[in-house]
Amino acid sequence: MTLNPHLAPQAPGPANPPPALPPGGLRVVALGGIGEIGRNMTVFEYDGRLLVVDCGVLFPEDAQPGVDLILPDFRAIEDRLDDIEALVLTHGHEDHIGAVPFLLRMRPDLPVYGSRFTLALLAAKCREHRQRPALHEVREGERRDVGAFGLEFFAVNHSIPDALAVAIRTPAGVVLHTGDIKLDQLPLDGRLTDLAGFYRLGAEGVDLFLVDSTNAEVPGFVMPERDIGPVLDDVIRRVDQRVIVACFASHVHRVQQVLDVAAEHGRRVAFVGRSMARNMGIAAELGLLRMPEGLLVDLDEAAALPESKVVFVSTGSQGEPLSALSRMARGEHRQISIRAGDTVILASSMIPGNETAVFGVVNGLVRLGAHVVHQGNAKVHVSGHASAGELLYLYNAVRPSNVMPVHGEWKHLRANAELAVRTGVDPESVVIAEDGVVVDLVDGKARVSGRVGVGHVYVDGLSVGDVGESTLSDRLVLGEGGFIAITVAVDSTTGRAVSRPTVSGRGFSDDPKALDAAVALVEMELSRTEVEGITDTHRIAQAIRRVVGRWVAETYRRRPMIVPTVIPV
Amino acid sequence: MTLNPHLAPQAPGPANPPPALPPGGLRVVALGGIGEIGRNMTVFEYDGRLLVVDCGVLFPEDAQPGVDLILPDFRAIEDRLDDIEALVLTHGHEDHIGAVPFLLRMRPDLPVYGSRFTLALLAAKCREHRQRPALHEVREGERRDVGAFGLEFFAVNHSIPDALAVAIRTPAGVVLHTGDIKLDQLPLDGRLTDLAGFYRLGAEGVDLFLVDSTNAEVPGFVMPERDIGPVLDDVIRRVDQRVIVACFASHVHRVQQVLDVAAEHGRRVAFVGRSMARNMGIAAELGLLRMPEGLLVDLDEAAALPESKVVFVSTGSQGEPLSALSRMARGEHRQISIRAGDTVILASSMIPGNETAVFGVVNGLVRLGAHVVHQGNAKVHVSGHASAGELLYLYNAVRPSNVMPVHGEWKHLRANAELAVRTGVDPESVVIAEDGVVVDLVDGKARVSGRVGVGHVYVDGLSVGDVGESTLSDRLVLGEGGFIAITVAVDSTTGRAVSRPTVSGRGFSDDPKALDAAVALVEMELSRTEVEGITDTHRIAQAIRRVVGRWVAETYRRRPMIVPTVIPV
Repeated sequence: MTLNPHLAPQAPGPANPPPALPPGGLRVVALGGIGEIGRNMTVFEYDGRLLVVDCGVLFPEDAQPGVDLILPDFRAIEDRLDDIEALVLTHGHEDHIGAVPFLLRMRPDLPVYGSRFTLALLAAKCREHRQRPALHEVREGERRDVGAFGLEFFAVNHSIPDALAVAIRTPAGVVLHTGDIKLDQLPLDGRLTDLAGFYRLGAEGVDLFLVDSTNAEVPGFVMPERDIGPVLDDVIRRVDQRVIVACFASHVHRVQQVLDVAAEHGRRVAFVGRSMARNMGIAAELGLLRMPEGLLVDLDEAAALPESKVVFVSTGSQGEPLSALSRMARGEHRQISIRAGDTVILASSMIPGNETAVFGVVNGLVRLGAHVVHQGNAKVHVSGHASAGELLYLYNAVRPSNVMPVHGEWKHLRANAELAVRTGVDPESVVIAEDGVVVDLVDGKARVSGRVGVGHVYVDGLSVGDVGESTLSDRLVLGEGGFIAITVAVDSTTGRAVSRPTVSGRGFSDDPKALDAAVALVEMELSRTEVEGITDTHRIAQAIRRVVGRWVAETYRRRPMIVPTVIPV
Repeated sequence: MTLNPHLAPQAPGPANPPPALPPGGLRVVALGGIGEIGRNMTVFEYDGRLLVVDCGVLFPEDAQPGVDLILPDFRAIEDRLDDIEALVLTHGHEDHIGAVPFLLRMRPDLPVYGSRFTLALLAAKCREHRQRPALHEVREGERRDVGAFGLEFFAVNHSIPDALAVAIRTPAGVVLHTGDIKLDQLPLDGRLTDLAGFYRLGAEGVDLFLVDSTNAEVPGFVMPERDIGPVLDDVIRRVDQRVIVACFASHVHRVQQVLDVAAEHGRRVAFVGRSMARNMGIAAELGLLRMPEGLLVDLDEAAALPESKVVFVSTGSQGEPLSALSRMARGEHRQISIRAGDTVILASSMIPGNETAVFGVVNGLVRLGAHVVHQGNAKVHVSGHASAGELLYLYNAVRPSNVMPVHGEWKHLRANAELAVRTGVDPESVVIAEDGVVVDLVDGKARVSGRVGVGHVYVDGLSVGDVGESTLSDRLVLGEGGFIAITVAVDSTTGRAVSRPTVSGRGFSDDPKALDAAVALVEMELSRTEVEGITDTHRIAQAIRRVVGRWVAETYRRRPMIVPTVIPV
């Protein structure tokens, strides 16, 4: 019996409703994304009206078994849906757009603002949910007034094309939200983060700066995406067998470089995995991915080509068990079987928590004889988030009065806060406000004013929210120790057992006789309860639970769930 | 509903019993530790007699929920226990000695050879199991004949004192097993890996070389352990609040450096965690840890000292949920509460699979205001295993005829094999033989001759082996989706329900009405089985499982375990 490492997660602080927002003040609260990496969603309030920036999902950890997705907690706005002026999306990653369909269920006519590629990805997602959201395309450099909120959009560089930062002007002051950002000075598409715009805004005066914290702990600068091309070229030019490259399905520039190298070496390309094919189709259509005529082939054509004439571009870089790459590693992929001497390139990061799964895939591929290239042995990945060195540039450009680190766990938020202070921001004006903590910008000062309840909202299968902490806690107990079910029918007037009790376990033991000794124990207890005149089935069940629980703890030193059922007949 | 990433682990190859070992040949088979990191155990056979090197445990992964430990699979030797001449232990880490008590249960009089510190740690472990093994202390440079096996021991450097490599001489040839090894050229205790001895043995001729693969993928050389002292000094000298250092409880040299730095800065030291206090006590007693008089205080004394006058040395560096450090991070430790400005140093590696737990602890500490120093932001850890550069030294010293990489997953084994080949070993003579694969050394050639069954043997609570793959597979299903139990009593002659069916779920939903609709469904099905004259409770149960399973899949798109119980009355 081991204890689950996650049974006592850090509880969020208690709710503490803030006072009314003073006239002329701006209120900011994150319903997700601060204190965690994922489900980004920040709500801004001015004069009774709301603006939402991003609405993403978080992928569950071991402590949340069986859950598909975790949504931001909409409770703080669910009674004020009509107050929302608009939803602004900074870019098209799942942790920024994945929960939009769930928000649209509550407010189908919500105006959604975003760049062309972002909205195209959202539209594809919404089609799967049979939704047709009201989309408003915006571009970098553009300004839009949305109710009381004056929006201005800035080009930023990230691991997906067409990302935006957004400035929000209200009489309370100027807010700048970076979204996810880095400062690649040689971006593949030439679209630089608009540092000039940030300097201009900084000169105008930025009252509150919300800054991506993901890589704040990492010193220095992220290498240009462009530098990965030559590494891919160097690997692919040396081999004369199959090459499989796995990366994120939205990383257009990474895929672009694979395509370019493939073309250079006379190889055709096949996309493997539904999301990869879909997203690259959208990117090509919007002119964000250059695909030379005839380069692309379908999977069956590719499988028939000579091994030296093909590159597969696949999903599965995080070790997802159902992905094409995991199937290949297990020797179970229908069209692609790995042969000794094949090359697999994991052109991707390893998201914390996925290490075991990714290493499992790598070991499986190596066992089959593949040569596996990954960020541990070659420069085949760069991050999409600004490192500390780049964040310093941002702070020095914007020179904000107040700073609120976003997008990160505590260690990232704290590291980002320290960077802000080192560039001269008053420590009093750097506010680490995890999910639910309410920050009010009043008279140019950002201060915590209270806290609203923000919990985890789970999507499991078709339903949202019915799986909660109690169900997850039961799953953790069941997953660790299984259960023992004891069933008996009793005469409801005398409390006498009218059947032999059945005692059976699942997830408890492979030994079919493991629970045999418990039957007599239950029978003895039933005699006792009968003698004592106990007829209440609930009390009889409790008595059974107690004796079986004690017996199993002493005999096996384990803690399965004990599930007694007493049927009155 | 998500699918568990581990439901389809890579199956080991089928068993294929080897032919009889030719006279004069030596047989080698790993019952653990090759193809995985942990539960190291290698069996050597010559002329019908067996020698075992190491007998460790493996700690379970997510795919093995609720399991405490995984043992080597003793099946291949359980009928031949009396053939075992001796067990040789290379060092005192759990993955090399942890399973010894389980082997001793089968063969209590088994002679055990090892160095002084290794045997002291084993003796402490065996006392907990109420065992008194037959211990034979050996030292580096020593030779012992154990039946047909001529043993010679060599000093090696690792992350625990007093580690040994062992040479095994039989008429079949000379075998050298490194155990866990690195080549720190400035070891804290001055005890260098005996490279001179390896050169001498190499000149004599090594027929088979078993080599630690753990860091074979890592280029270059491991930094000296000694270089960590100045980093610790640099951190501790700057702070005037509490310092907590977490590291492995057997890492005597790491702890030594903490003690030295503490003494230098006038701080007393308290050990936190039972294994830390016990192991450091043993090390001090054997003269392996220098502890100045009066430096050590107990936890209550330490808690009463001024904050600038104490260093806590704690377990919990892997995020173990019950460890002192995890309790501190949750604000639940009885004696030590973290205050803003305290410093926590994780002077440790992060074992793959523990990332989420370790980051959870770091975030908890940072949230409480602690400054956390770890290998990601300071040089406070070095590995105990030779990197590629060091392994090349070993191959060039030993110049083996045959090589068998040990201690590693496939990616490590393959990388180690490549290093052997690059130093000139014939690729045909480098044998990657995962657990159970039988390697015979005959006429100076090592070749695979067959395979014996090696599975995972689980310890869960008090029992060994009764939790198997079927139980784990049930736990995975239960942990992902919980279960729905349906119970009904039926008249055993007519098949008619004599109670209303109860339908209840655990780990399924927080909504108490989630399963209400299933009751009517079950009643309808019971009417149907009654009308069809079905009285067999097993068939009735199957019918119930089918309708409820289909209903829940359609309604919720989830796959809980469906557990029908039909009681005949």
